[in-house]
Amino acid sequence: MVKVGIIGATGYTGVELLRLLLKHPDVSVQVVTSRTENGRRLDALFPTLRGHTELVFTDPDSPDLLACDLVFFATPHNVAMRSVPQLLDAGVRVIDLSADYRLLDPELWSQWYGEPHASPGLCANAVYGLPEVNRAAIAGASLVACPGCYPTAVQLGFMPLLKAGAVELQPLMASCASGVSGAGRQGKIPSLLTEASESFRAYGVGGHRHLPEIEQGLGQLAGAPVQLTFVPHLAPMNRGILATLFAQLKEQTVDCQALFDAYYDEEPFVDVLPAGEQPDTRYVRCNNRCQLSVTVPQGRNTVVVTAAIDNLTKGASGQAVQAMNIMLGLPESRGLELISVTP
Amino acid sequence: MVKVGIIGATGYTGVELLRLLLKHPDVSVQVVTSRTENGRRLDALFPTLRGHTELVFTDPDSPDLLACDLVFFATPHNVAMRSVPQLLDAGVRVIDLSADYRLLDPELWSQWYGEPHASPGLCANAVYGLPEVNRAAIAGASLVACPGCYPTAVQLGFMPLLKAGAVELQPLMASCASGVSGAGRQGKIPSLLTEASESFRAYGVGGHRHLPEIEQGLGQLAGAPVQLTFVPHLAPMNRGILATLFAQLKEQTVDCQALFDAYYDEEPFVDVLPAGEQPDTRYVRCNNRCQLSVTVPQGRNTVVVTAAIDNLTKGASGQAVQAMNIMLGLPESRGLELISVTP
Amino acid sequence: MVKVGIIGATGYTGVELLRLLLKHPDVSVQVVTSRTENGRRLDALFPTLRGHTELVFTDPDSPDLLACDLVFFATPHNVAMRSVPQLLDAGVRVIDLSADYRLLDPELWSQWYGEPHASPGLCANAVYGLPEVNRAAIAGASLVACPGCYPTAVQLGFMPLLKAGAVELQPLMASCASGVSGAGRQGKIPSLLTEASESFRAYGVGGHRHLPEIEQGLGQLAGAPVQLTFVPHLAPMNRGILATLFAQLKEQTVDCQALFDAYYDEEPFVDVLPAGEQPDTRYVRCNNRCQLSVTVPQGRNTVVVTAAIDNLTKGASGQAVQAMNIMLGLPESRGLELISVTP
Amino acid sequence: MVKVGIIGATGYTGVELLRLLLKHPDVSVQVVTSRTENGRRLDALFPTLRGHTELVFTDPDSPDLLACDLVFFATPHNVAMRSVPQLLDAGVRVIDLSADYRLLDPELWSQWYGEPHASPGLCANAVYGLPEVNRAAIAGASLVACPGCYPTAVQLGFMPLLKAGAVELQPLMASCASGVSGAGRQGKIPSLLTEASESFRAYGVGGHRHLPEIEQGLGQLAGAPVQLTFVPHLAPMNRGILATLFAQLKEQTVDCQALFDAYYDEEPFVDVLPAGEQPDTRYVRCNNRCQLSVTVPQGRNTVVVTAAIDNLTKGASGQAVQAMNIMLGLPESRGLELISVTP
Repeated sequence: MVKVGIIGATGYTGVELLRLLLKHPDVSVQVVTSRTENGRRLDALFPTLRGHTELVFTDPDSPDLLACDLVFFATPHNVAMRSVPQLLDAGVRVIDLSADYRLLDPELWSQWYGEPHASPGLCANAVYGLPEVNRAAIAGASLVACPGCYPTAVQLGFMPLLKAGAVELQPLMASCASGVSGAGRQGKIPSLLTEASESFRAYGVGGHRHLPEIEQGLGQLAGAPVQLTFVPHLAPMNRGILATLFAQLKEQTVDCQALFDAYYDEEPFVDVLPAGEQPDTRYVRCNNRCQLSVTVPQGRNTVVVTAAIDNLTKGASGQAVQAMNIMLGLPESRGLELISVTP
Repeated sequence: MVKVGIIGATGYTGVELLRLLLKHPDVSVQVVTSRTENGRRLDALFPTLRGHTELVFTDPDSPDLLACDLVFFATPHNVAMRSVPQLLDAGVRVIDLSADYRLLDPELWSQWYGEPHASPGLCANAVYGLPEVNRAAIAGASLVACPGCYPTAVQLGFMPLLKAGAVELQPLMASCASGVSGAGRQGKIPSLLTEASESFRAYGVGGHRHLPEIEQGLGQLAGAPVQLTFVPHLAPMNRGILATLFAQLKEQTVDCQALFDAYYDEEPFVDVLPAGEQPDTRYVRCNNRCQLSVTVPQGRNTVVVTAAIDNLTKGASGQAVQAMNIMLGLPESRGLELISVTP
Repeated sequence: MVKVGIIGATGYTGVELLRLLLKHPDVSVQVVTSRTENGRRLDALFPTLRGHTELVFTDPDSPDLLACDLVFFATPHNVAMRSVPQLLDAGVRVIDLSADYRLLDPELWSQWYGEPHASPGLCANAVYGLPEVNRAAIAGASLVACPGCYPTAVQLGFMPLLKAGAVELQPLMASCASGVSGAGRQGKIPSLLTEASESFRAYGVGGHRHLPEIEQGLGQLAGAPVQLTFVPHLAPMNRGILATLFAQLKEQTVDCQALFDAYYDEEPFVDVLPAGEQPDTRYVRCNNRCQLSVTVPQGRNTVVVTAAIDNLTKGASGQAVQAMNIMLGLPESRGLELISVTP
Repeated sequence: MVKVGIIGATGYTGVELLRLLLKHPDVSVQVVTSRTENGRRLDALFPTLRGHTELVFTDPDSPDLLACDLVFFATPHNVAMRSVPQLLDAGVRVIDLSADYRLLDPELWSQWYGEPHASPGLCANAVYGLPEVNRAAIAGASLVACPGCYPTAVQLGFMPLLKAGAVELQPLMASCASGVSGAGRQGKIPSLLTEASESFRAYGVGGHRHLPEIEQGLGQLAGAPVQLTFVPHLAPMNRGILATLFAQLKEQTVDCQALFDAYYDEEPFVDVLPAGEQPDTRYVRCNNRCQLSVTVPQGRNTVVVTAAIDNLTKGASGQAVQAMNIMLGLPESRGLELISVTP
């Protein structure tokens, strides 16, 4: 059994990681840390874990972390970048679910996050953990930066078009909707049921922190700098992201459905739907799959891609487990084959 | 008191119309028809009306309709186009909330609705009931075609940009989300709480019936034919539409905020938000207002407009009452000054 | 115009009070206070008020309060009891929506609220503001203690049975469900959409602060001390309370439907439903009405009453306006005749 | 591998059964029937099954059913009672999730279901499939009648008290709330999101079909006839049942917490919470567990039990799999150890 630890498992990505790892046949969760919940049983904070674990939150400075084979950071940004160097020095592999190592350029990181990066030298070494792009590099990585939720959906949606050179590089638009869990497990008024239900609104239109990460990824796929107009919205539901993407076809004759079918034919967690069907956040809930659909309305110039993921699974913790499986040489789907619930 | 009738008030636009008209100080609802509910008290079907009316549904062939000054159609498409001619002949003014008279070209209507138009000669005479565009024509109209919900939000959002010639005519994109009431009060599986909650998905991507209506309206605003990529989505909530619109600025120097502020300065039901604030379907719930915001992210070429309305109020029955007020020479806001509920 | 002020209008009862009072034809809202929002426009905090008021939050120590005819407290408990004496001394009438003056016995208040009462001498003078019980006393009151939300539903439901002596005084049970707005507009984790949706649970089973208030009221109705088993639940919705009440009939022959019909025949805001129909929180949403149904299942000994109210309207701010109308000698329904929204 | 079939898997209990059985390590789903969906792939009807099965719905008259070791009925009532005899004759064991064999007395069944029972002779032979009551009988059964959802929660909640003789047999009350999936996957207006959200209401107060089943079960536990006042409610959520139960203690000195802890100490799927904690439908969502809490408010005579289950899992399909495991001599938790999702 591979020994794993989780730093900061008091939020939604943390408990999602626990849901997956506690039932994973090849790993053993050895240590789970939290500064605020230190000493408390995990199942006291998360009653859904009753009967599934006897673990107790420990202090983040616990030496047990150094005895792990692999450690996950399920923390807000600004935590991993301070602690990762010590873990790597001790030979512990790291998967960081936060934003700390997603941007290659620590200067750009500083601009968007408003503070200097604490371990800028590692940024270029971290492997961006999107398996559909970086599978081989992930296998050998000691530090994986798990993609953000929006970036996962947007990149998977645009990838076949950009790789095939089928669309103009501008304008590109992404109109995305996320469930409220994307705002985290914190007592904030806009996330109250009384504020977020019966509400649909855009936010971060002027600039969202996922924008530079997406543009970096799309640029790599396109082989040239890319500008994206990215409008996230908050939808009145718990989980899920739907990304609706717009691009201009270079030639109307391209068969987009065939392009997508072929591109993702071998991917275990990307499901291209038959023509005419649409992805739904409900269909991928609590599941590591990304559902995709591609349409060229009225046979005009604009191609529309829709991509659905669960923001906490393929958009965070499921993708982290997928990366872990690759790093450990396990079958990529191990522990991730759960069926979504209906209804 | 002006005598009004409502044909087909068993759906959500019907009961919304009743909510507004039963408290309107200048009109008296004389007759409400329904083929299926004929003979039943309105408040037996809609318990929210208990204590507010003693009315009973009557047969749609009721002669009382001809004694009304003004009749509303709150029916599915394909009903009004058969009955309107007789009412007009009898001197009754008509506001049709259905799609029957929204397209000037009956041939185009036939293509999208899959059947011949029953009164094609009236199509060109009907006044498109968007007060912000057609106020003067509505005042004198005998037949008003009330705009669809998506078309209202999309046209109000693009209008200042198109009128000012500030954006290219292509590409134009509209990514819109609607609450489930847009699907009507019918027992359909996709509208069940168990199917629609925790769900966000696109639909009608290949072609939605509101598309030709929107393109007709945008073309009139632009003074040239316009193509729109229109992607509606279903959001897990009761009411509300948010339209997120994308266009390419001809010149980056235009001050879009000032443009919008000036354009809608006098409009009673269009509320341009201060820079940096975003509309929310919750803020206009059960209210006839359209909230608008305009942003040019990163100061690039793409302008983003967001528009929120209540699909049943400004997107249907509220707009119909607004049109009625104009037709009757009443203050335009009469009976429409209710405050939205929080939460 | 009667001059009114509101102390502490930053919560849900505050904004509900504003929704009703800003459109009330006989009052003028002069001053609205908030320590935390002092200086901010009301419509900046509550965008639903845009276009309906120019008011700005002022400091709670504002002398303008003393110039009002009537002041509402929409504060948490422990605020009114410190400020009310000064207002009464200045001749200002007060309606307190908080719990401070609901219990006649300040000792009992101290036990449940964990601190001494700051103006115990006023407790016995405050009029309990349930119009269906205390209409005459309210008319002449200088200080009205507006009932809690659960107490309103439970007392209105049991009242006809207790007044008629039709049921045993024990056991009495109340199983109640409330929407999340009952927990207030505060950033608490259990009230997040991500925690409260898809969740139904009991709370306060060992003892809820509304229990002594309900028992005091039921005891007055019964003319003898009463013990109630009261189990509140949190339901995944914004607004509304449903109280399901159980009591043992003394004689099975009593016609409960006739008893309820007669008892509430003249009440403008109590709606006894026809036999076989059930109240629904949706039917009274944003409305001051209480819907009631009474059933004797299988013709056995147990009578079941169900009572639906909107916790923020008849359960708080609507009831406060109803009391105000009575105090001012206005028609009791003035400003409260809005139709609930469907859907 | 044990060969199993499912009759009528187009509803929510059917797809829940598929979710569990398709991943069960010891069984193979051989045949799934549906008269209406005959010939269609399962994953076309339920997109959550994409990638998990290649199965196609077959006709209910398929001979493949007779080749199964065990067949589940996930049909409405009135179907199993016609087909079960033939299956039993062929040596196929049956688990019926419908109501057809839950009542021992076919006359009583007829009264509540309004038609004669088609195989009355089997009623007394069917084993009532509540493992916590009937484990040994289930092991050897050829026909198991899976309990209803409300009956499961109510019986598990009252059982320790009745078995210990700790409460009076009257009055007993059960105030229960269920998610909308309890109404099935059918296009009915009251189950629309637009009707059921923001709504909480009682139904079936005069008599619900689960009443005789519950009274039969409670009577067996008590060793004497029992009358229950049972009030079900519809809550605005997908899944889950919370039962709030009231009974009168014979003696106030009994330690109810200790009684419950001891009674369910060995049960794999009954989780008695620590004193002061309350079950939540969210904590058992998609999980086969029943969470229980017992309280004696104010130390008075009335004991309150709250019981939470997922109506589709422990209240239907999970319980059916639990019974199957027992029938097959497998570990009782096999295939049922999934962790509930947060949020």
